[in-house]
Amino acid sequence: MIYFDNAATTRALDEVAEKVKYMLTENFGNPSSQSIMGVNAETEITKARKSIASSINAEPDEIYFTSGGTESDNWAVFGTAKGYIRSGRHMITTAIEHPAVIMPMKQLEETGWDITVLGVDEKGNVNIEELKKSIRDDTVLVSTILVNNEIGTIQNAEEISRIIKNKNPKTLYHVDAVQAYGKYPINVKKMGIDMLSVSGHIVHGPKGVGFFYMRKGLRVKPIIFGGGHERGQRSGTENTPSIVGLAEAVKIDLAELDNANKKVMLVKKTLSAGILNEIPNTYINGPSLDEGSPYVLNVSFEGLRSEVLLHSLEENEIYVSAGSACNSKKKGASSVLSALGVTENRIEGAIRFSFCRFNTVEEAEKCVDVLKEKVAFLRKYMR
Amino acid sequence: MIYFDNAATTRALDEVAEKVKYMLTENFGNPSSQSIMGVNAETEITKARKSIASSINAEPDEIYFTSGGTESDNWAVFGTAKGYIRSGRHMITTAIEHPAVIMPMKQLEETGWDITVLGVDEKGNVNIEELKKSIRDDTVLVSTILVNNEIGTIQNAEEISRIIKNKNPKTLYHVDAVQAYGKYPINVKKMGIDMLSVSGHIVHGPKGVGFFYMRKGLRVKPIIFGGGHERGQRSGTENTPSIVGLAEAVKIDLAELDNANKKVMLVKKTLSAGILNEIPNTYINGPSLDEGSPYVLNVSFEGLRSEVLLHSLEENEIYVSAGSACNSKKKGASSVLSALGVTENRIEGAIRFSFCRFNTVEEAEKCVDVLKEKVAFLRKYMR
Repeated sequence: MIYFDNAATTRALDEVAEKVKYMLTENFGNPSSQSIMGVNAETEITKARKSIASSINAEPDEIYFTSGGTESDNWAVFGTAKGYIRSGRHMITTAIEHPAVIMPMKQLEETGWDITVLGVDEKGNVNIEELKKSIRDDTVLVSTILVNNEIGTIQNAEEISRIIKNKNPKTLYHVDAVQAYGKYPINVKKMGIDMLSVSGHIVHGPKGVGFFYMRKGLRVKPIIFGGGHERGQRSGTENTPSIVGLAEAVKIDLAELDNANKKVMLVKKTLSAGILNEIPNTYINGPSLDEGSPYVLNVSFEGLRSEVLLHSLEENEIYVSAGSACNSKKKGASSVLSALGVTENRIEGAIRFSFCRFNTVEEAEKCVDVLKEKVAFLRKYMR
Repeated sequence: MIYFDNAATTRALDEVAEKVKYMLTENFGNPSSQSIMGVNAETEITKARKSIASSINAEPDEIYFTSGGTESDNWAVFGTAKGYIRSGRHMITTAIEHPAVIMPMKQLEETGWDITVLGVDEKGNVNIEELKKSIRDDTVLVSTILVNNEIGTIQNAEEISRIIKNKNPKTLYHVDAVQAYGKYPINVKKMGIDMLSVSGHIVHGPKGVGFFYMRKGLRVKPIIFGGGHERGQRSGTENTPSIVGLAEAVKIDLAELDNANKKVMLVKKTLSAGILNEIPNTYINGPSLDEGSPYVLNVSFEGLRSEVLLHSLEENEIYVSAGSACNSKKKGASSVLSALGVTENRIEGAIRFSFCRFNTVEEAEKCVDVLKEKVAFLRKYMR
């Protein structure tokens, strides 16, 4: 099988599965229990928090474990809204954000908040001039996605932060790093990031877990209340197996980072060149190969419907996405591609290939061969 | 080791750990992916939903998977508040609820909601007359805990529901069933329950997962927004490994239910009789043995501090709780025991023993022997 759908989810590492099993059945105490069973479980959480904090140059007490990227994104938006409502009721985001940022902002909009959605150019880059103009005295949050999940555009977070803080030092900056973390180096201090969201299952970790980085000293409020876990910020018995599994994945991912990025870029370039050279009427959507993330390639096969091609590839055990998997079963055009100005015709035939470090150049070559055949067949008979 | 802290968390079954591993590393697709990888993962979720629904006599589309009991409880309170604010701003709960219900209600109180906290008798039973009087035209929610986590009181949910609906048919009824589910038979239709919260890690399932039952036709709103998973009600990529693991635990738990309850009651009675007969100045807190849940026994060892006894038992690998583990590291007196009218002196020396079906009468006997020795020693030297 060739799994090119790693932006939807990844296979957990065997080492991760082992850690999860160990925490489920051996070191299974509740970290809030006062007994040594609790202490042993808590020790593992403390280690996980420390190693994850260091991976983004944060302090351990700036890391909060959550149920995943969606909860983290929701926390950034709703938590900021609750904590800073006296400073203003304006937030800024972009036209290519994940629904876990956009939908909470839409909720706020219904209660009287003002939301500015920044446009992007045809490569998915945020319009910096528009950003500058949009920041106001009452802007409490700007949220941008670091690596876009559908097209792989990498935003210049450091520059965005500088612009925000120059214009209004009180405006907070949140970064959705779900597709970036573990692949793209992140230094929250250097990049001027106040809050950051990460999901476990995109980095070969478990599903149902993620973390939220929140810079010390912020007044961002919790969104889930109860027993006061995570220093009072996120209640609920800690998901020790998945947290420890996530830390294990991160440890291994980061050790592989440099090699992985080079290797994956070669996979992407092989696939991209193969498609463009050997299949007519194909177009790369989003950033140029070198500017975008090595892990995402979005291609339009003009004249085809992406679902048909997807299922056709599936016959050869090649797995890809039509659009993102983030919108649960949502049909309808990709709003990300629309924001780039991609025509409806090309959106309809867009396939997202997304990679991980276990993918190979041979897989990319094989995929090109299969695509060539399938696309020709479908174009001939399925119009 | 003797693990009598099962109300804090349970060891996951080996079968559960296997299912989790399988979903992490083999059937690892994103259920929202359109490919067969997604379909295969979704098939497992559908099976899990169906079997969990049938376990409480609900429909599959009335079950929503969450990150655990705390999120489910929060959903009941905040979701009802958002959906029914036009019907009123009054909620009712009891003095012995879990913080995951109480704390969200406190949040609402800060924004102008009126919260009534019902008292309980010395056994932990809700004052039914007080309940009757408290229900008003503008009461949108009553929330009660089915089996209390510290003392094991079982509320008569069916009677409570009848009283609520007689007084105000529009008032919704939520039940925190975290300590009840898998142990006490639950039939949401017969019991007149509109919403119900369950946690995985209390039923030998994984941590970081639970479910929320919400009767069809309610206007309760989501609290987490994004890609529209769980029929638009709970966004975030489904935690397939833990959901499937939870369903596996439930399947096995429920097959054992009758035998387990009888066996565990014997464990509890053995421990209780041993303590009361052999250790002076000990007192059972909460319901009588036959009325309370077989799974929880709360005992005050007068003149001792519970933490000291807890750590002393730990030396013999006997694990218990001082109070509940739900309040993350919260020191201070148990609010549940205070609500029963237990004196401060006895609260200070209260130990919660909580069981599962893997505990044995021999363990209870052994525990009595150790307790006898430890309590005598501590009372002699540690005053």
